[in-house]
Amino acid sequence: MQAGEVGERALVRRLARHFVSKRNALGLMDDAAALRFGDAWLVASVDRFARATHFPPGMGHEDMGWHACAAALSDLAAKGAEPLGVLVALGVPGEMDEEPLDAVARGLAACAEAHGCEVLGGDTKPGADLSLAVTALGRAPEDELLPRTGARPGDVLAVTGDLGGAAGGLAALRRGDASLAERVFRPRARFAEGRAIAASRGARACTDLSDGLGSSLHQLADGIGFVVRSEALPVSPLAAKAAGHGAEARRWALQGGGDYELLCVLQPSAAERVGLAVRAAGGRLTPIGHAVAERGVWLEQRGQRSELPDEGWEHFRSPQA
Amino acid sequence: MQAGEVGERALVRRLARHFVSKRNALGLMDDAAALRFGDAWLVASVDRFARATHFPPGMGHEDMGWHACAAALSDLAAKGAEPLGVLVALGVPGEMDEEPLDAVARGLAACAEAHGCEVLGGDTKPGADLSLAVTALGRAPEDELLPRTGARPGDVLAVTGDLGGAAGGLAALRRGDASLAERVFRPRARFAEGRAIAASRGARACTDLSDGLGSSLHQLADGIGFVVRSEALPVSPLAAKAAGHGAEARRWALQGGGDYELLCVLQPSAAERVGLAVRAAGGRLTPIGHAVAERGVWLEQRGQRSELPDEGWEHFRSPQA
Repeated sequence: MQAGEVGERALVRRLARHFVSKRNALGLMDDAAALRFGDAWLVASVDRFARATHFPPGMGHEDMGWHACAAALSDLAAKGAEPLGVLVALGVPGEMDEEPLDAVARGLAACAEAHGCEVLGGDTKPGADLSLAVTALGRAPEDELLPRTGARPGDVLAVTGDLGGAAGGLAALRRGDASLAERVFRPRARFAEGRAIAASRGARACTDLSDGLGSSLHQLADGIGFVVRSEALPVSPLAAKAAGHGAEARRWALQGGGDYELLCVLQPSAAERVGLAVRAAGGRLTPIGHAVAERGVWLEQRGQRSELPDEGWEHFRSPQA
Repeated sequence: MQAGEVGERALVRRLARHFVSKRNALGLMDDAAALRFGDAWLVASVDRFARATHFPPGMGHEDMGWHACAAALSDLAAKGAEPLGVLVALGVPGEMDEEPLDAVARGLAACAEAHGCEVLGGDTKPGADLSLAVTALGRAPEDELLPRTGARPGDVLAVTGDLGGAAGGLAALRRGDASLAERVFRPRARFAEGRAIAASRGARACTDLSDGLGSSLHQLADGIGFVVRSEALPVSPLAAKAAGHGAEARRWALQGGGDYELLCVLQPSAAERVGLAVRAAGGRLTPIGHAVAERGVWLEQRGQRSELPDEGWEHFRSPQA
């Protein structure tokens, strides 16, 4: 079968079968790897972007650099790590001018600096299309690593910040309204929130929402299930502003990607304490549902449950890819 | 100007101006970055390869995986680090079949295992051409990091192993003789040698010979120069076997890339001791010349010095790129 027919996640599962990692405490299916390094964890993650398939039309080169860097850093934030720096592998078409490359570099540098870290180095080679593979390196204290799986029935689901702003901003951009472009093009990794969640020791699992809430819930649901209360979703005011009607904003909050908020699963007795810790760190944590023994993901609306399909962004398969 | 006209090294220098790294002890122009991590160094390096521009025709997909992994690991070996693992960003054309991708994964896994480390994770995304960006992660003890610059006049130049075998093997392959394919397609990073050189504390600088000796000497010559004695070069018996005449084998040893041996600069008083340490580690270290105050790189042959041009492999500019 061809890669384009298999879909990204099935392809990753297939390739992962060839690898056995005893050192990576998070396992190969997490978005980041964690290795014991002295008395701490080295947390590392790589994210690859190509101009033709991953960036919306009209996005500038400086924003491409920022976005690729922020996406890689976001995976570290979701593990409770603090960022140290990034390495960047650039694939550059030979006919590309130097100026847009300078812009990519400026975006990478600005994003790293905004997150308190640095571009440490990289590799630049000819490529058929402009591509960026950003490897983010970070550090987490010994007992404060947040895995992706480990949720138990009864646990509380919670998200940082608000949802749907990036999807709403993208919809606005497509209508020619650039007022929300910053939210779409220049996401920020939630390091303060991730560190607060990890240090509270009340979370059993965490991931970032790069692909959208619905998709991430399906990835976290490893042998269990989740019920999300629609009324509890912190729909972004930006999404509400960009949407034609409330249902559209809610759909963006559920299925839109690119928000880079954190989705975590909390021990019920710790949920309130973790929320206060995130608030003390300058963030916000909203309970949106809970884990159940039955496998699946459901949306609960006015007392009725409906299945929430696994419809987030998936490369190779999603129509834009 | 277009990227293809600028050349790889000038492009990297241009892009590096946008980055300020206070944490990377090796500086942005080294092949690897080193960060303080607890009481040791985290050493990290990324290398990018694309099928269309970086691999010789006839190279199998398993070998592509091995080669990309070995090249990234080699940069760690040259810094005196021990390898922990690699992260891999794959760009995959949608029409590519799963089987060759499996082969790439097998090659990556086999190479990591052969070097005592692991594939820790990665990212797989659609790409216009098959590409691999491999990030290698390693660890070096506090006082044993090998920089790329720091040579002083009078220092001894030395290389591990022998030279020209990869270029000779490639020439043989082009004639239809695959007997040296292993040397070309499956290089090994010199970790035992790199650790021995670093632990001896007698080296001032070190790099790997991915791009060839001539090119690497020009990169090490930061404000000083080097004289290489042609008669001292440890020409590979494989190169001698593949060459039509002795001069061809010697040219491969000087300018051929892909050997992944280590080139180091030793304090004169420590040269013999470092050589013995490398031998004790199962390797070989051959003095091939010395550093001089005058800037430049020269080849000394029968008492005559001639300039050694900077003619190693450079992507974007080299004719095959």
